[in-house]
Amino acid sequence: MSGKRLSPSDAMFLYGESREVMMHVAGMLPFTPAPGTPPDHLRDLMDEIREAPVHAPWNLRLKSPDMLRNPLQTWVEEENIDREYHVRRSALPRPGDERELGILVSRLHGYPVDFHRPPWETHLIEGLEGGRFAMYVKVHHALVDGFSAMRVLSNALSSDPNDRTHPLFFSVPPRVRPPKEDKRKDKEEPEGILFPELLAAVRAQYGAGKTVARALMNVIRSRRARDHELVSPLEAPRCIFNAKISKSRRFATAKLATARLKAVAKSAGGTLNDVILALSAGSLRKYLIEQEALPAAPLVAMLPVAVRAKDDEGGGNAVGAILATLATDIADPAKRIQTIVASTMHAKQQLQGMSKAAILSYSALLTAPSMVQMIPSTAGHVRPTFNVVISNVPGPEDARYFRGARLEAAYPMSIPVHGQALNITCNSYAGNVCFGFTGCRDSVPHLQRLAVYCGEAMDELEAALA
Amino acid sequence: MSGKRLSPSDAMFLYGESREVMMHVAGMLPFTPAPGTPPDHLRDLMDEIREAPVHAPWNLRLKSPDMLRNPLQTWVEEENIDREYHVRRSALPRPGDERELGILVSRLHGYPVDFHRPPWETHLIEGLEGGRFAMYVKVHHALVDGFSAMRVLSNALSSDPNDRTHPLFFSVPPRVRPPKEDKRKDKEEPEGILFPELLAAVRAQYGAGKTVARALMNVIRSRRARDHELVSPLEAPRCIFNAKISKSRRFATAKLATARLKAVAKSAGGTLNDVILALSAGSLRKYLIEQEALPAAPLVAMLPVAVRAKDDEGGGNAVGAILATLATDIADPAKRIQTIVASTMHAKQQLQGMSKAAILSYSALLTAPSMVQMIPSTAGHVRPTFNVVISNVPGPEDARYFRGARLEAAYPMSIPVHGQALNITCNSYAGNVCFGFTGCRDSVPHLQRLAVYCGEAMDELEAALA
Repeated sequence: MSGKRLSPSDAMFLYGESREVMMHVAGMLPFTPAPGTPPDHLRDLMDEIREAPVHAPWNLRLKSPDMLRNPLQTWVEEENIDREYHVRRSALPRPGDERELGILVSRLHGYPVDFHRPPWETHLIEGLEGGRFAMYVKVHHALVDGFSAMRVLSNALSSDPNDRTHPLFFSVPPRVRPPKEDKRKDKEEPEGILFPELLAAVRAQYGAGKTVARALMNVIRSRRARDHELVSPLEAPRCIFNAKISKSRRFATAKLATARLKAVAKSAGGTLNDVILALSAGSLRKYLIEQEALPAAPLVAMLPVAVRAKDDEGGGNAVGAILATLATDIADPAKRIQTIVASTMHAKQQLQGMSKAAILSYSALLTAPSMVQMIPSTAGHVRPTFNVVISNVPGPEDARYFRGARLEAAYPMSIPVHGQALNITCNSYAGNVCFGFTGCRDSVPHLQRLAVYCGEAMDELEAALA
Repeated sequence: MSGKRLSPSDAMFLYGESREVMMHVAGMLPFTPAPGTPPDHLRDLMDEIREAPVHAPWNLRLKSPDMLRNPLQTWVEEENIDREYHVRRSALPRPGDERELGILVSRLHGYPVDFHRPPWETHLIEGLEGGRFAMYVKVHHALVDGFSAMRVLSNALSSDPNDRTHPLFFSVPPRVRPPKEDKRKDKEEPEGILFPELLAAVRAQYGAGKTVARALMNVIRSRRARDHELVSPLEAPRCIFNAKISKSRRFATAKLATARLKAVAKSAGGTLNDVILALSAGSLRKYLIEQEALPAAPLVAMLPVAVRAKDDEGGGNAVGAILATLATDIADPAKRIQTIVASTMHAKQQLQGMSKAAILSYSALLTAPSMVQMIPSTAGHVRPTFNVVISNVPGPEDARYFRGARLEAAYPMSIPVHGQALNITCNSYAGNVCFGFTGCRDSVPHLQRLAVYCGEAMDELEAALA
């Protein structure tokens, strides 16, 4: 068995894994079968899957599954893939509506992966009303990150409704990277080490009895000495989402036409991401008012963004993170989105004036407090740096098919952690933006209302900007 | 919230809980609905369940769910029971045969309980062929032990097919114990402390760098000083079942008429338990030969038995554990069962000559090596004290009903641990003995064959003794 060292940021996701915090992401993919599909087609598919090849990274497992925090952890190839473990059939109880589907995938998302095998599972879910079915694909973030997972899933589907032989995602041979790109990857690697370094610093300070806030300030100061371009974060209020989590999950979805979001973006002078923030803001405001838990100060969102660094001549993008206000203190949807647009514009301008190294440092700093929150006793006591993570993952623009069945939507499911009990991730696909709301079952009661209110927020924004 | 300290032996089951070793037991209960039952009856039942009361112990949760090994761990009453979490609807994929049911419950059994809530779950499983359904009821051993769980489940069902209002098990008010019985319980409690004491001794020795075998010998010697009546255990060979386990499970069932077992018991001059051992032995021998893994020396089984201690004047029973040979080196079924009968008779005679305290010490000693095996690195390296645990839990003799649906069988699901990857537990119910084979998915491949071979072993025994 050949070993491959984990990158430091991948190792972070093993470090964070616990009974309550499970560092896996997932995609929920509902399908409409082609007319005339026999009812047993998913069962027949299993026979095919038993023979299908499993390519990297889907054949990799941890060398030391009993010691997740082993600093010398490596990936090794699993020779005997237990396909019936990894690809499973599931079914919905009657009547098999969207609610039942949400309940089942919430439940599946609340179970940990088995690190004695390649850490991924696919469930073929039948019994969805109208003869439809769904796929739930779970993968640990240490193996594949959320962005890549959604891209791999979509890319493994066919653009051709008549293609009935396209392999499943794990049977698609990996693209061989040109050597040039590989070299660049190696050069970049040390930057990833920032995360464990930060965590060590934070933990050391925390362990020494000082307050976490002071520990973080020290980390920020020491970083500043090197990267004097850092911007100061917004001030996030305390909120019910910044609590300790349990191991159970809730999941809800919303699907909105991209054209509607683009029209609103144009009217408001913002981007598609700004509208996603505004929709989330409208939904969160209504939900928190109903829960009698709306903070007086506006919520702060963290969102990963692609930015061009000032020192990047090649036109490449760096992935940074920005903080933006959600203006949840503002009742008027038009004023709310304008405040959001101004906030993200300001944050991105600051980021664009930074060097690539500074952008990465800054992003690492933003996530450092989440790491502190991973210590269960601190969650809910430490003032959060941000209240909710909102991401947008671009997906394919054309319709995709699996054995002739049309992919209706592609909903991402993400990772609640201690201190961040709610996550909103969007995926664009075939003319729609698919929202996935993933939350802790206990800290985010009635989470499905967030999905309903997200649709209502769309109507309100359109009316306000008309 | 009123706190109730965990008994030392309950605390042991929290101590042993890990990502791979999950200390929950379960029952798998298939039902045949009464003629004319509407297809949506399980869905309607959920509305009723949302209003149903939840009585002790089903309303108790741990006070410190994030610190399972907290020595001051207590049970507290959960005021807001999330009934939709605890009682769930599930469904089988087509065609919903016994195989699909086995796959689903194996999967459910491989997921840990959530200690932030009362540690139990019930799944109402629909889609079983012929309009049938099943229940899977999981409970952590720290809350309710396996014997009690099966008894509670059966007792909560009705003996009357026309009774459509009988409450579910968690809504049955607990029987109030007479004060006399309570006092006796208090007096007995200290004896339970043996388990953690033994574990501490074993771990201390183990940590000090001595071999585990030596550590155990020391424990045995120190106990002997006090209890000089201890019997010497049999010598168990190394076997594939005494391996490190992963978190995934396999489960298989067999159902045999009690009358057939009793007839064999009579011919062989043994007990029903002896026949259960002989059936297990026949099945294990065939399975291990097929896996090319039959040890030359006979397998040794551990079985919990009720025995009368020599100092127990009141006629009460003590629960002890005995070791018996499974005579898997003997090809002839008749000779094999005779060897087993002689072995259990000898073990029970020894036990009956012991004091109650000595019986408990001896039983604790038998399980001490399993505790060492809970340290993952030792499993598979240390010679096992026994190869497999085989239990028999008595159940009701008459048929039971749930809302008019007849309980077809009651299969117990138990706990594989490091070093004990397979468990066989039987439950008698309405004229049948229901076998549940629970194993680690990786260490016990093709586990379902054990169930098939158990049925074949019955035929062979009958033929051999005819």
